[in-house]
Amino acid sequence: MSELINIFTSHKSERSFTEQPVDEAVLDRIISTAYRAPTSVNSQQVSVVITRDAGRRAEIAAIAGGQPWIAKAPVFITFVLDMHKSAVGMSAVDQQQIAHQSIESIVSGSTDIGIALGSVMAAARAEGLGIVPIGGIRRDPQAMISLLELPPMTFPVAGVVIGHVDEPAHQKPRLPLATFRHDETYQTQGLEQQIAAYNEEMVQHWKNIGRNDGESWSESVSGYYKNIYFPAVLPALLKQGFGTDK
Amino acid sequence: MSELINIFTSHKSERSFTEQPVDEAVLDRIISTAYRAPTSVNSQQVSVVITRDAGRRAEIAAIAGGQPWIAKAPVFITFVLDMHKSAVGMSAVDQQQIAHQSIESIVSGSTDIGIALGSVMAAARAEGLGIVPIGGIRRDPQAMISLLELPPMTFPVAGVVIGHVDEPAHQKPRLPLATFRHDETYQTQGLEQQIAAYNEEMVQHWKNIGRNDGESWSESVSGYYKNIYFPAVLPALLKQGFGTDK
Repeated sequence: MSELINIFTSHKSERSFTEQPVDEAVLDRIISTAYRAPTSVNSQQVSVVITRDAGRRAEIAAIAGGQPWIAKAPVFITFVLDMHKSAVGMSAVDQQQIAHQSIESIVSGSTDIGIALGSVMAAARAEGLGIVPIGGIRRDPQAMISLLELPPMTFPVAGVVIGHVDEPAHQKPRLPLATFRHDETYQTQGLEQQIAAYNEEMVQHWKNIGRNDGESWSESVSGYYKNIYFPAVLPALLKQGFGTDK
Repeated sequence: MSELINIFTSHKSERSFTEQPVDEAVLDRIISTAYRAPTSVNSQQVSVVITRDAGRRAEIAAIAGGQPWIAKAPVFITFVLDMHKSAVGMSAVDQQQIAHQSIESIVSGSTDIGIALGSVMAAARAEGLGIVPIGGIRRDPQAMISLLELPPMTFPVAGVVIGHVDEPAHQKPRLPLATFRHDETYQTQGLEQQIAAYNEEMVQHWKNIGRNDGESWSESVSGYYKNIYFPAVLPALLKQGFGTDK
């Protein structure tokens, strides 16, 4: 099964797709991997909405801040944190769901979303397709909720573009493994130097692929994280009935 | 690559392990899949801490509410939402990280944790090992933070037990596919009936594997979700420097 390890370690996000449709049987197989993914306390708090309609994909591309690959590739899948199903399930035995009012449910549900999303990405790549995960739908979650007609106690956490690759992307370097893998206790020593080395490696990577304006990791992360990123997430979560324990 | 699809669709959580160690080269391969997993805006906001020490595993088993398989199997991996690395990276270019104060970062980081965790689960199963994902470490996140010596702006989101299976588990049925997969827009019709059918299927499943006291899905989810689940999550997140936009 080194083939499976290879699929994961060769991960890259593609952003150039043809308009060739994805075979329905292939899509069924891809979705089946997410359907069987584990969920916290068997809550099955994940649902997916498949968007093939070109008009809707163009809307999602705009919602995500202008990401043309969403409009170009034939399939977009939205991964929905779904506590509507458990609430309805509890009503059947005259119980009322409270857990969705807690940040724990956002942590737990987003983790389960990630497991399902990762399954779909690996399965699609194993089928010879390209993918790019999309967090940008959280730029305007309310627009996604309207577009997909999501009921209360659900939230569109992330999406993925699936299609046939046109111009393949390059795999990006990672921070050194020692910053990712810790044995027994978390090690902070040497992090500044490891980041400095990675910053140089990233700038060189951009040059190698013909981009002389490529930023270091410190610079690119700063561009996103010096402010609250996606401030529309909290109000949309609250409007859907989720909470933060208060 | 139907083998990869099979690994995902045959997922089950094992809870019976031998004490046989996991080969180091196998563990390296398993970790490499999570190391190469994608992260939001290339923030690389995931780290893992590997616990082999038997004393620590016994502590984690207790933190997770008494889960003996954590103490029995040779390897436990904690998946850490890690915005310490990005904060240090931003300091290198005289920028201050603000994003970790937002619930968006908890959503985004937990999703990335799920992708990494899912990779590790699939890779371990492809290597012939058994796994069970553990959310129970969030029962007492502060104890995990102390045990693993986690720095500020990090949070232990989930874990996984890895080992050689003793008595294999049975795969649990899922809610009908129609409750999981939606095309173009979310469909709520028929959900009560689908849940009723699944409740019967679950009770029959428990009987089939020799458990006559098995609960329906409605009953088991109610047991968890009629209260705030893991109320220690919010205070531990806040103490680590995370926030909810307020």
